[in-house]
Amino acid sequence: MEQYSQQLDGIFQALADPTRRAVLGRLGKGPASISDLAKPFDMALPSFMKHIRFLEDSGLIRTRKEGRVRTCAIRKRPFATVETWLSAQRAVWEARTDRLERFVTTARDKG
Amino acid sequence: MEQYSQQLDGIFQALADPTRRAVLGRLGKGPASISDLAKPFDMALPSFMKHIRFLEDSGLIRTRKEGRVRTCAIRKRPFATVETWLSAQRAVWEARTDRLERFVTTARDKG
Repeated sequence: MEQYSQQLDGIFQALADPTRRAVLGRLGKGPASISDLAKPFDMALPSFMKHIRFLEDSGLIRTRKEGRVRTCAIRKRPFATVETWLSAQRAVWEARTDRLERFVTTARDKG
Repeated sequence: MEQYSQQLDGIFQALADPTRRAVLGRLGKGPASISDLAKPFDMALPSFMKHIRFLEDSGLIRTRKEGRVRTCAIRKRPFATVETWLSAQRAVWEARTDRLERFVTTARDKG
């Protein structure tokens, strides 16, 4: 549970940045090298690398070095983790709506 | 687009903390006063208030003061914003899978 919570912290933190979201959007289309990924951004490479490392640490991407080129690929599991968390929230709201509905129905039948 | 991106930054940042996620989980069951919300947390009130303000600024909750009590309630729209973003990512992956499938099918039919 603690681990799951820390994982969510890392994933949400990684998603809270437009550069990192754009990189994920690009990687959704297929793996890419870091230099190709960096091209659309007006950013020094060390700053860009920080974003890549952040994404890798959160588990949202994996990287692999082949010769002198480091290639990045998206990992889908953390997206599923976020979706599971969102569904759990939605389940709480829906349980509440059901309780309210039962209350209203009971009140009406009694009234 | 810029506004949407900043909104996502704020929402994801707000979700990247276990206290704030726990508050949202509680508020999913119905509105609550700040003092009730703070009870389960071993945290000074000013620190807790920072989390509440963070959640309010991101749009994930709204607060209303009635007399001396400030009540918080969840707002569902930002959750939908996150779900929309996740669906857009998934659509990119699925488009890619479709392209790969067409490629494999074409290669097989030609081969």
